[in-house]
Amino acid sequence: MDRDQCLALDAEDPLRAFKDEFVLPEGVVYLVGNSLGALPRHTPERVRQAVEDEWGGQLVGGWNHSGWYEQPLTVGDRIAPLIGVGPGQVVAGNTTSIAIFQAVAAALKLRPERRVIVSDVRNFPTDHYMVQGLAGLLGGYEVRDLSEGRFDDAAVVLLSEVDYRTGARHDVPSVTARAHAAGALIVWDLCHSVGAMEVDVSGADFAVGCTYKYLNAGPGAPAFLYVNPRHQDSAENVLSGWHAHAEPFGFEAGYRPAEGIRRFAVSTPHVLSFAALEAALDVWERVPMDLVRAKSMALTSLFVDLVGDRLELASPADPAARGSQVSLRHPDGYPVMRALIDRGVHGDFRAPDILRFGFAPLYTGYADVHDAAAGLLEVLDKELWREERYATRLAVT
Amino acid sequence: MDRDQCLALDAEDPLRAFKDEFVLPEGVVYLVGNSLGALPRHTPERVRQAVEDEWGGQLVGGWNHSGWYEQPLTVGDRIAPLIGVGPGQVVAGNTTSIAIFQAVAAALKLRPERRVIVSDVRNFPTDHYMVQGLAGLLGGYEVRDLSEGRFDDAAVVLLSEVDYRTGARHDVPSVTARAHAAGALIVWDLCHSVGAMEVDVSGADFAVGCTYKYLNAGPGAPAFLYVNPRHQDSAENVLSGWHAHAEPFGFEAGYRPAEGIRRFAVSTPHVLSFAALEAALDVWERVPMDLVRAKSMALTSLFVDLVGDRLELASPADPAARGSQVSLRHPDGYPVMRALIDRGVHGDFRAPDILRFGFAPLYTGYADVHDAAAGLLEVLDKELWREERYATRLAVT
Repeated sequence: MDRDQCLALDAEDPLRAFKDEFVLPEGVVYLVGNSLGALPRHTPERVRQAVEDEWGGQLVGGWNHSGWYEQPLTVGDRIAPLIGVGPGQVVAGNTTSIAIFQAVAAALKLRPERRVIVSDVRNFPTDHYMVQGLAGLLGGYEVRDLSEGRFDDAAVVLLSEVDYRTGARHDVPSVTARAHAAGALIVWDLCHSVGAMEVDVSGADFAVGCTYKYLNAGPGAPAFLYVNPRHQDSAENVLSGWHAHAEPFGFEAGYRPAEGIRRFAVSTPHVLSFAALEAALDVWERVPMDLVRAKSMALTSLFVDLVGDRLELASPADPAARGSQVSLRHPDGYPVMRALIDRGVHGDFRAPDILRFGFAPLYTGYADVHDAAAGLLEVLDKELWREERYATRLAVT
Repeated sequence: MDRDQCLALDAEDPLRAFKDEFVLPEGVVYLVGNSLGALPRHTPERVRQAVEDEWGGQLVGGWNHSGWYEQPLTVGDRIAPLIGVGPGQVVAGNTTSIAIFQAVAAALKLRPERRVIVSDVRNFPTDHYMVQGLAGLLGGYEVRDLSEGRFDDAAVVLLSEVDYRTGARHDVPSVTARAHAAGALIVWDLCHSVGAMEVDVSGADFAVGCTYKYLNAGPGAPAFLYVNPRHQDSAENVLSGWHAHAEPFGFEAGYRPAEGIRRFAVSTPHVLSFAALEAALDVWERVPMDLVRAKSMALTSLFVDLVGDRLELASPADPAARGSQVSLRHPDGYPVMRALIDRGVHGDFRAPDILRFGFAPLYTGYADVHDAAAGLLEVLDKELWREERYATRLAVT
């Protein structure tokens, strides 16, 4: 497919108008929306409002008059439809790592007779690290890798719907059913699927995710935690801060859990970061997710086709079996990516050898995919990556 | 002292120029800086820069080029002088509640042979609640109230330097020495002292605090955690997220703690909330803290004098024994405070009967204190608080 054909596809793309709702630097093809989403055009004004009108104008009154106190719940309710669940089931705030700790600790308390946590060694490392920290704190738990295959004595299974490195996608309903059949609970990490496809974790026990990738809520935006209503009265939040109390402003000496999803709040929400998340969700209310997924599969497939067999594909070949990213292997992946970024095509690198390209369907077009593939092939063909300056590692890869 | 005398004191106040660095609504005497500090005038521009220039302009490159990745440590180093400690000893991020969990859990692991946590029933409730959650998770621990007086078998003592309700101040060096003499570790909560006085926790084991009160970093601004260097190699961070790993971008399967204070980071910092914290710290670099404390004691003493014996003083009568707040008791404290706020004097209420007035020396003057006391006496003398509309409780008190 040549560039003109790609431009023709862009012209008839039903999602094309969304691109204008984002700020993207001139001359850049941005394929890192799976790591940090682009800035929605109306976000700066919403954040300004939070800083100047709410904080500056109302001072501490903002907790009541600007809805800050309710943000974890009101924002949670706006995230809920993006993961296939209902109101009163999602609380926003903190970070994915903290939410993983809450979810896994709660699951272990719901299965006190079991001592095994199944995790996936290929999962994003923080998922393991948090589980290792929790298991070390408690003592007596085995953290078993998913590859061992056994769920039969597991208290909880922690998995990502989409693998951060390869983009490989788990089938949520079937893995959930398998965990439940074995008597285990399941926690889904949705960081690499929410906003990229139709997600439905309504059958799961817990789910967590971040909002700064496909959801475009900004660097370090608040995370979210879903708790299935069937567990809300029995599950314990071990990070039982005052915003999880039945009566936070009663200032009682003893912790008494709130009813419902509020029980899983922790403490004071990061209000300014929440403002950018609220702005990001304004966009999502108008997005038909089936079209997002259809375009995502078309974009990743086009990229795979255009790169051809020039590099080994680390992602599943079937677009239905992967998320909205394409991962390619190259032994010198780091300098290859740096050289490519220098030419205006932004992807990222994941150790040891993965070139990662994320395709955010709201602001990525077919011609962008064409240009990205052409840039990559040029870097490879001309061996541009061998320039010495590309070998230097930056702090964040 | 009459209003003209107060204006004369304002005119010769060496800190008077700082008031112009804050945005305060017209006609308001704001005495809730001990709950949410005022907006520094240059903060909106710093936040705009983070949103538009850094996120919008650099996208994911902001992690390297705008220092986002290092923020928890660079900002921690800027907080350090405010609590009497050195660089490499403070990490910023998350919330005070989360930091309490990290500090107390680490302390328990350092004293594995002991099973008692001493906490203060009068402390801010989230401190207890987090300890109760941790003790419940671990099992086998006793949470003992400070009033019982015994430290001899305690693993850790958790106290606030300044009591949120009464403003009563602990003597940090002597209580720290007493804990250490008993073989216990100590965690200080500095929420109500940092930015209000010279703080020195360099002899303590751990300390935590928030930055949205006297430090003026905005609603839900990141908290901080101090770890004494003598513990940094041995203490464990049970919330062991990927930013606490020795090599976060190595994406290893096993958690391997970072060296130094980075070990106590958790995960992705809330970058937009951090921007407002950075702006707030710009001001503090120019503030002589001895003058802040001297003015704070003068302001609280003036308020106590002006209110006279009209209401019972819940704070210590000696200004050296209290923080930068004055707490007064009234059985109908809630409607009294609402009526007072309606007249432009903003304090807050803490159950069951406390009227709380915080005096942030950077933007509160002597004439403000005069007007606040006059307003309070008017509400009481004319019984304005008996109007029915003031009885209705708002969500946040």
